[in-house]
Amino acid sequence: MDSYGGQSYRPSASRLTVVAHLFGIIALILMLVWLLHYREGIELDSDNSFRVFNVHPFLMFFGFIFCAGEAMMAWKTVAADRNVRKFVHMFLNLVAICLGIVGIHAAFKFHKKENIKNMYSLHSWIGMGTFCLFGLQWLFGFFLYMFPKATQTTRARALPWHINGGRALLYMAIIAAETGLMEKVTFLEMQHPREARLINFLGLAILLFGLTTDLSIALARYV
Amino acid sequence: MDSYGGQSYRPSASRLTVVAHLFGIIALILMLVWLLHYREGIELDSDNSFRVFNVHPFLMFFGFIFCAGEAMMAWKTVAADRNVRKFVHMFLNLVAICLGIVGIHAAFKFHKKENIKNMYSLHSWIGMGTFCLFGLQWLFGFFLYMFPKATQTTRARALPWHINGGRALLYMAIIAAETGLMEKVTFLEMQHPREARLINFLGLAILLFGLTTDLSIALARYV
Repeated sequence: MDSYGGQSYRPSASRLTVVAHLFGIIALILMLVWLLHYREGIELDSDNSFRVFNVHPFLMFFGFIFCAGEAMMAWKTVAADRNVRKFVHMFLNLVAICLGIVGIHAAFKFHKKENIKNMYSLHSWIGMGTFCLFGLQWLFGFFLYMFPKATQTTRARALPWHINGGRALLYMAIIAAETGLMEKVTFLEMQHPREARLINFLGLAILLFGLTTDLSIALARYV
Repeated sequence: MDSYGGQSYRPSASRLTVVAHLFGIIALILMLVWLLHYREGIELDSDNSFRVFNVHPFLMFFGFIFCAGEAMMAWKTVAADRNVRKFVHMFLNLVAICLGIVGIHAAFKFHKKENIKNMYSLHSWIGMGTFCLFGLQWLFGFFLYMFPKATQTTRARALPWHINGGRALLYMAIIAAETGLMEKVTFLEMQHPREARLINFLGLAILLFGLTTDLSIALARYV
């Protein structure tokens, strides 16, 4: 049993949680169909710079957003021991950071190969801002709640910031993803309407993953 | 004094609330500089179809997102009488819906003038979805909390959904705004780098308005 805001509850999954996992898997499938069927495939160490680039959307969703969302649900919707949940939450977020770094590296590597300027788009500003804040949030979380652990009072005072900051970061990551897809799809709309349609559905699935994850966390006590 | 989640608090503005209002005003200024200085101006009933289109970004931010954000803060961060806050919250959200309808109409009018297909982009899907859900949320809120008003138990059970649904809708509206800006800016980046830079900062200001509004609501009891 945890206590927060003066109430105690037992973490458990709701139908909303199930739907969130499903949307995550649907988004992953659509992403793979897009990159493997319509695009050139996924390979970080390739001579084809588009195969290098494709690592970026794949890892930024499956590595970063999906893992971070699952980390949130692991803490709040799994009926396991408190310490197990805390460790899985920390570890999945660490995995999200590591895979996110590789994903960002892929974008820079593509830019270098193709001689494109770095960090000029709104997508890159939002994405990089989100990723840096996410790293800070992980560090704060680790030092406050894992090791060396702050006092009970400090932990309790920092908790609303950790929770609401985490939810805001999930939405920021979704915004980064949607702007990234929008950047790609705007060029494609005219020549490749079928692919553009697929990307639209991918964007929708990613948005719904974020929404249902957030609501399944926020309403965990009520549903 | 309100009570929610077993605790009572007195609504009051924090420094975060001040920052949220500021980012809203900054975004409004950047939007006007963009549309009046770099673009053709704003006019719904014009022969120049671009002047018609410009009504869309202006009203979707200043009419819809800004008013809806202010409505959230009016309820949660103003130390006024409960009924006054409730009325202002309802009324500002109604204004947001009305101006949003005009803003969406402007986009359709532009499409008709220029013979462009409606509702094909990811931006339009997310935007229209958000707007319809926002309308539903307003109706539910009105019938549950204003007139004819549900029972105490029903109101209390619906409250977490109303609150968290509203926060999710704010983020969805921000996502719609960023994808819309991204659609515009992707075409501009090459020929008009100064204008593209301005739009990037506009996008950042809108994001920061959403973030600080959300956090100032969510952390109202703690800051």
